[in-house]
Amino acid sequence: MEIQESRLEQQLDFILEVDRLKSVLRETLLTDSSRKENSAEHSWQLAVMVIVFSEYADDEIDLKRVLKMVVIHDLVEIDAGDTYAYNHEAQEEKEEREREAAESIFGLLPSDQAQEFRTLWEEFESRETSEAMFAKAIDRLQPLIHNYHTGGESWKDHDVRLDDVLDRNEIIQDGSERLWAYTEQLIEAAVERGMLKTDANPVSNDD
Amino acid sequence: MEIQESRLEQQLDFILEVDRLKSVLRETLLTDSSRKENSAEHSWQLAVMVIVFSEYADDEIDLKRVLKMVVIHDLVEIDAGDTYAYNHEAQEEKEEREREAAESIFGLLPSDQAQEFRTLWEEFESRETSEAMFAKAIDRLQPLIHNYHTGGESWKDHDVRLDDVLDRNEIIQDGSERLWAYTEQLIEAAVERGMLKTDANPVSNDD
Repeated sequence: MEIQESRLEQQLDFILEVDRLKSVLRETLLTDSSRKENSAEHSWQLAVMVIVFSEYADDEIDLKRVLKMVVIHDLVEIDAGDTYAYNHEAQEEKEEREREAAESIFGLLPSDQAQEFRTLWEEFESRETSEAMFAKAIDRLQPLIHNYHTGGESWKDHDVRLDDVLDRNEIIQDGSERLWAYTEQLIEAAVERGMLKTDANPVSNDD
Repeated sequence: MEIQESRLEQQLDFILEVDRLKSVLRETLLTDSSRKENSAEHSWQLAVMVIVFSEYADDEIDLKRVLKMVVIHDLVEIDAGDTYAYNHEAQEEKEEREREAAESIFGLLPSDQAQEFRTLWEEFESRETSEAMFAKAIDRLQPLIHNYHTGGESWKDHDVRLDDVLDRNEIIQDGSERLWAYTEQLIEAAVERGMLKTDANPVSNDD
């Protein structure tokens, strides 16, 4: 009984700590442009998308594992913060920061669960299994959809170019050919509507 | 191909619409008391809790179904709004409002998925299966934990009494005896610390 008590206490400490993810802001706006979204509600939306879009996964996937992955994938941001997708310098040191953050947040859990969460997070980051490739595809697609439906504001604010967006998001095709085909259409439309600049036609020459 | 296109369009419309859940505010505060939480991030936290606490479910549960349930359980609030747990009048008409809201939000999906989501939501609300009883237990436990760790502010603001809290939350024991035992301790501590008034000792007589 004593051991079980302490196990529950550890789990409760973890649940209280994860609440901080609701205060980690991303560069992505809500679709009504009212504010930036936070990483907790982003993770929730990924879970909804995983359920709705699972039929487009190229491989058979274990949906339970994909759901677990997207639910916990950003917990490292509680200590490491959100790293903007197109900030290349910050991306380079992101890995080290997040690895330390993973020790810290998952370490609150009883050791068997700490191990499970850590393994799930590493699986997601490594993008080698069918589940991880699909989860990552959804994680990339969600902000694209939001950026497109908010007039590309976050791309414009950070001077993000077509090549950056293609580079970053082409891994969607590893998880789902169907969703990648849609993504390509979305990116094309974003360029046509002036949300995304192409390097071949820099804005400085036109102004 | 044409039919599939239209299916994906319907699914994307749904994904855009669910974003509005991030703007539905609950009475529960974040644990740092900085603001009220919204129903999207609340749903995310339930998913984390389901993963961490599944070992305390009294029955064998299909974890994938529980995760789906907590992820979608509040989508009806996009149209119906959040109904405060201890507002008894609003609770009475809640059912009708939410039923209409379910038609509206799930109706955006292709009919097979609309049916799946509707069935999952009804299963959650009916609290008859082991999965629904556990999901509901977690949905009740989460705000209790937040209320306790924010000094009971939301209880005090709405003059919520011990009996109300016991009435509303005793269903936790249908999903998990272990989590109910913990809940009873939490409520007892909340009374001892003056966060929750008992009717036997109304504050008006003391003032």
